[in-house]
Amino acid sequence: MSDSSSCPIPLSDRWRWGSRQAISFLMEQGVDNPDILTLGAGLVDSETLPVEEVGQLVADICSDPVEGRAALQYGSTPGSPRLRAALLKHLAALEGCTPEELGISANQMLLTTGSQQLLSLLCEVLFNPGDIAFVAAPTYFVFLGTLAGVGARAIPIRSDEHGMVIDDLDREIARLAEAGELHRVKLIYLVSDFENPSGICLSAERRQQALAVAQKWSRQQRILILEDAAYRELRYSGEPIPSIWGFDRDRQHVILAQTFSKSFSPGLRVGYGVVPADLAGPLADRKGNEDFGSAHFNQHLLARALESGVYHRHVARVRRAYTIKRDAMLAAADRYFSDIPGVEWVHPDGGLYVWMSLPTEIPTNFDSPLFKHATTAEQVMYVPGYLCYTGPIEERPRHQMRLSFGVLEPGLIDEAMKRLAIAVRKFVGT
Amino acid sequence: MSDSSSCPIPLSDRWRWGSRQAISFLMEQGVDNPDILTLGAGLVDSETLPVEEVGQLVADICSDPVEGRAALQYGSTPGSPRLRAALLKHLAALEGCTPEELGISANQMLLTTGSQQLLSLLCEVLFNPGDIAFVAAPTYFVFLGTLAGVGARAIPIRSDEHGMVIDDLDREIARLAEAGELHRVKLIYLVSDFENPSGICLSAERRQQALAVAQKWSRQQRILILEDAAYRELRYSGEPIPSIWGFDRDRQHVILAQTFSKSFSPGLRVGYGVVPADLAGPLADRKGNEDFGSAHFNQHLLARALESGVYHRHVARVRRAYTIKRDAMLAAADRYFSDIPGVEWVHPDGGLYVWMSLPTEIPTNFDSPLFKHATTAEQVMYVPGYLCYTGPIEERPRHQMRLSFGVLEPGLIDEAMKRLAIAVRKFVGT
Repeated sequence: MSDSSSCPIPLSDRWRWGSRQAISFLMEQGVDNPDILTLGAGLVDSETLPVEEVGQLVADICSDPVEGRAALQYGSTPGSPRLRAALLKHLAALEGCTPEELGISANQMLLTTGSQQLLSLLCEVLFNPGDIAFVAAPTYFVFLGTLAGVGARAIPIRSDEHGMVIDDLDREIARLAEAGELHRVKLIYLVSDFENPSGICLSAERRQQALAVAQKWSRQQRILILEDAAYRELRYSGEPIPSIWGFDRDRQHVILAQTFSKSFSPGLRVGYGVVPADLAGPLADRKGNEDFGSAHFNQHLLARALESGVYHRHVARVRRAYTIKRDAMLAAADRYFSDIPGVEWVHPDGGLYVWMSLPTEIPTNFDSPLFKHATTAEQVMYVPGYLCYTGPIEERPRHQMRLSFGVLEPGLIDEAMKRLAIAVRKFVGT
Repeated sequence: MSDSSSCPIPLSDRWRWGSRQAISFLMEQGVDNPDILTLGAGLVDSETLPVEEVGQLVADICSDPVEGRAALQYGSTPGSPRLRAALLKHLAALEGCTPEELGISANQMLLTTGSQQLLSLLCEVLFNPGDIAFVAAPTYFVFLGTLAGVGARAIPIRSDEHGMVIDDLDREIARLAEAGELHRVKLIYLVSDFENPSGICLSAERRQQALAVAQKWSRQQRILILEDAAYRELRYSGEPIPSIWGFDRDRQHVILAQTFSKSFSPGLRVGYGVVPADLAGPLADRKGNEDFGSAHFNQHLLARALESGVYHRHVARVRRAYTIKRDAMLAAADRYFSDIPGVEWVHPDGGLYVWMSLPTEIPTNFDSPLFKHATTAEQVMYVPGYLCYTGPIEERPRHQMRLSFGVLEPGLIDEAMKRLAIAVRKFVGT
């Protein structure tokens, strides 16, 4: 018998494509340095988590054996009909219309383990290796890992203060069409509200323009837009902008992804997608292979939260808490960074992040002197901006930081920003 | 602008490979025919779902704001450390040793959305298209879909009353090695206890033999065994058999998959895997891409259930209830089928299924006269046996049925079996 214990496990190409993701590294950083002040983690505000509300909702569910049993039994692969019905009403309220005017059925709504699973399922059913997705530069780094994991090519498109520059997108697709690669173009990924990491909202004009570009280039096959609206309900100032999905009257081009993770509780891990009718079956097929349904109990709980108004009262409370935290971070940025030459930051109207640019000569990478100094000497943590770009690391912008105001309380946000400014000053002009 | 609304969505190869799964069809049958008596669904007994227990556990969690917030916050990708620690103790009890004697760390335990997600993640990180997995004939049909979804080749190995015939497996691997395909062989899938669908336990001798075969053929690369022990804790008679995982002292070859779905609640959707140390990272990487963690709240709840003894008391209750149901089904089989020539069935010591073979001239397929008659005229539903085999449908055994005693109460099990016997008799001798 051979010595099998020294024998390697032969892993798949797909594992290799998707390995070494930044999110795991970030989570480890948090675990290894429990005393660090983190502006890095994408966790939500713990103080506003709905502990009492969930306790009451579960008590209500479990006080009725019939309802309790139904909630604790298997659900279906696409998810609880009761929650999907409640979500149609909720979506209609967000869209400013009646559920009927949405023009979709509950079958076009798929419940997932966080909206991340919807993003992942979509990539699975859409991409063969080498197929193309367009992403903003910068964009949500976890999605870059998901694209890599299915072997997709992520092509970055420049962003400005109105979000992705759609004229650039149009030109890039034209270039690909010219090169005979239009059949490879499958998806445009847009975080429409308070983009992670930049905090920018895609303007209403750009939203319509993006849809028009997707429609225009859907010649032999449909080009889809994935509208990641994870932060949609976390607006603290300014007026809501209609969703890209809302502009797509035919409901043919846009997948709308939303979640309860940011607005209610990430520990329940319930996200959802609204998808074109002919995509619902393929996504459910794939989900059938992967887990044949997310936790039914949690879906049932959220259905009750929506139906009873508990959810809406809670979101209002969450918004108030985050407004204070955002303002604390922006005030601290003014206080500690405004006199550092070459430092700029975005003032977001919502979401969880402030995107800060340092002078280009100060890299923020995991292996940079700044990162090391910040996380050790100053005990403050951020997400390096280069993670939010695609392509070879040496070619990416390396002087930016994503600063989250989600986790810390306002006083500690001030302290963390103060420490970070101290760390940054050490490298200014060097 | 082209008329994009008539434009097809270009789906991936992987979607195509994994589409049209039997489980979705079965779920639809249940939904479309709410009045049917189902011996088909793999749902668990609703009467024994832990409604009061879950109500109390959540009340305990939410009575402490600190604990409640922790449970409602994001967890980590591999899952709650608290539940993983509790599971080490639980596993040790099942294995008849101390947690230290298990010889593993909590890092080798991965928490998933049901054990199905563990099976799926393993397939993702292991298989390139064309790689080989061995499965018993018959085997768990959902896993056949998962293998198909990653483009794996599922090679069936004959089963007898002791489970998969390992001598046949050894010969098949030898044949593949001869043909230069040993590098394609990656996995042996074994449902060790009360196999779904056959109800058979793999004998202790075969378990050791399977491990020896995996070790023997692990020449250039390791061949893994996936031990699906979903029904392990649902034994109603006979003595427990040591797990394959337990025989693998080096913890190199066996992935042990277990779940709370059958023993506690499928609506919580918590499963887990115990994996070789060098597979934990790759699986977590992949899970990071797919959902970066299953519901933390549910994991926390189950940690408390294990720590408090609630879980163990509940499993004992579940076993008592299923013992009555199994006995009801076996008694009904005797009562209604014993005088039908050529009908045979397995007497399982646990699990949820009785596997019944009809005379070979009576097909049980979805499109068979028997299935149609049973589901319409007699209003009784079963799982056709051909779903549990791989390969071209016309070459598969077509005269078997998986009968679940999980859903119906004992009186209705008797009624359903009576109706099924009436349906079968209609086709005997035709």
